[in-house]
Amino acid sequence: MIREVGLRDGLQSIATVLSTERKREWVRRAFEAGQREIEVGSFVPPHLLPQLADTAEVLAYAKTLPGLVASVLVPNLKGAERALAAGADVMLLPLSASHAHSLANLRKAPDEVVAEMARIRAARDASGQRTLIEGGVGTAFGCTLQGEVKPAEVLRLMAALLDAGADRVSLADTVGHADPAAVSRLFEQALRLAGERFAGGHFHDTRGLALANTLAALQLGVIRFDASLAGIGGCPHAPGASGNATTEDLAFMLAAMGVRTGMRLAPLLALRADLAQWLANEATHGSLWRAGVPDHIGLAA
Amino acid sequence: MIREVGLRDGLQSIATVLSTERKREWVRRAFEAGQREIEVGSFVPPHLLPQLADTAEVLAYAKTLPGLVASVLVPNLKGAERALAAGADVMLLPLSASHAHSLANLRKAPDEVVAEMARIRAARDASGQRTLIEGGVGTAFGCTLQGEVKPAEVLRLMAALLDAGADRVSLADTVGHADPAAVSRLFEQALRLAGERFAGGHFHDTRGLALANTLAALQLGVIRFDASLAGIGGCPHAPGASGNATTEDLAFMLAAMGVRTGMRLAPLLALRADLAQWLANEATHGSLWRAGVPDHIGLAA
Repeated sequence: MIREVGLRDGLQSIATVLSTERKREWVRRAFEAGQREIEVGSFVPPHLLPQLADTAEVLAYAKTLPGLVASVLVPNLKGAERALAAGADVMLLPLSASHAHSLANLRKAPDEVVAEMARIRAARDASGQRTLIEGGVGTAFGCTLQGEVKPAEVLRLMAALLDAGADRVSLADTVGHADPAAVSRLFEQALRLAGERFAGGHFHDTRGLALANTLAALQLGVIRFDASLAGIGGCPHAPGASGNATTEDLAFMLAAMGVRTGMRLAPLLALRADLAQWLANEATHGSLWRAGVPDHIGLAA
Repeated sequence: MIREVGLRDGLQSIATVLSTERKREWVRRAFEAGQREIEVGSFVPPHLLPQLADTAEVLAYAKTLPGLVASVLVPNLKGAERALAAGADVMLLPLSASHAHSLANLRKAPDEVVAEMARIRAARDASGQRTLIEGGVGTAFGCTLQGEVKPAEVLRLMAALLDAGADRVSLADTVGHADPAAVSRLFEQALRLAGERFAGGHFHDTRGLALANTLAALQLGVIRFDASLAGIGGCPHAPGASGNATTEDLAFMLAAMGVRTGMRLAPLLALRADLAQWLANEATHGSLWRAGVPDHIGLAA
């Protein structure tokens, strides 16, 4: 299962602002192409990320599509309260396992984010909403600021998030430091730790390894991955670098391997083509859109 | 071990002609960066591929570098005679497992290429040269002209090449139809068939899967792969599409995984930067060059 994160992780890192109408169209057409979880935005203060100021509206639209899981990012309790009020299906609280990155990005130490998770869980339980809480452990394979991030620290924080009330946890290679061997090692331990509460992987393609890293996780039985249409997004430290795993390339790899994602490649590529038009001034990524789907594999429909 | 094929598979598909001096510099600096096998060109008639008309000169230079395996492509017996006269360390005879592709590209049916292999083996044995003969089975995962290529036919032709006298055989995903699951299945059978005479994989990145496919082969114990610096080359049917696996990204993946290739990433990236200048009018590919090597992994040297 591929969670589309382009509307959040993609749009938040680029200059072009997509209109709410375009975002709705993206959500609708991704859903029609078979996508069943979409991160529609982020409940951060609108002055920080004006591109995502319409998250509540996009979320309200996403909730009209039957069977679509509408996911949002929340940076803290305040964001979680907005997500609960808006009735998000999933809210993701990011935590950076790199102390330096956590302070720079969230102005909190990782363990303060764990404490925030406990408050968010209490707010969810008191709200009567069924919103699932995901704890996303980022910089899980290293960090541009701090350098090495120890796997033991990643796993400690993952366990702490679960203990503090996260319904599920995921791992993110925020800056593209992962490699397939490191993924195999860390994800195996994460699966042992979190079991069915392990929600999957979020890989960046900064150094071209997003799909190889995905394969390494897939081989352990992980079947949920984040990706961004046309690979939009990226690392602010490496201008022009590809950011997220590319949704359409990942969907092709899984389909070609016989992994049933329920996604159809032709409408996905058509949407990708329009998105590239909408974002004509931004770098887009990926390979499938150029080469197309080989006819005989029978995936083109 | 990564065999650099950019000087052949890359340069043959682009318009820019590199001077012999530049090619020598490429060979020298790739060697200095730790590369130990380089396909320096192709002994095809010069009027067909004028870009590669200086193959004998580049080969003569490559042979002055101690420990470097100098490899060339030969399309037929005539090319093999030139490779033998020039003292190539390896000559690769390509065979296309797709009947349609073989006729279109080589104007021979696959089994006629097998017959040519027998003649090449006889010529090699009569020459007194120690040139190794590699049979490269291309379109091994499908073909743009024919569509499906049956694995059984790929394996039959691989066995026939060995029987006809190839010292080693390799598999190529000429048009980017492979996926990791298909690689696992076919390479496992190829290893069973050819054992130590299986020389490795040649993946194209047409649909972004070159590194994931490489990983699937690596996990079976295959440790030899072709790749092209800056990913140059490509499929004439998909303009702008990436072609070969990208040497520097593959070298990074292997190094990050702890696979000792003997290659150093910093000089390789410096060479890649100059190559991109030399080929300023051509599409180049890959990701590592933008993002750089993460300091803390200790691979930058």
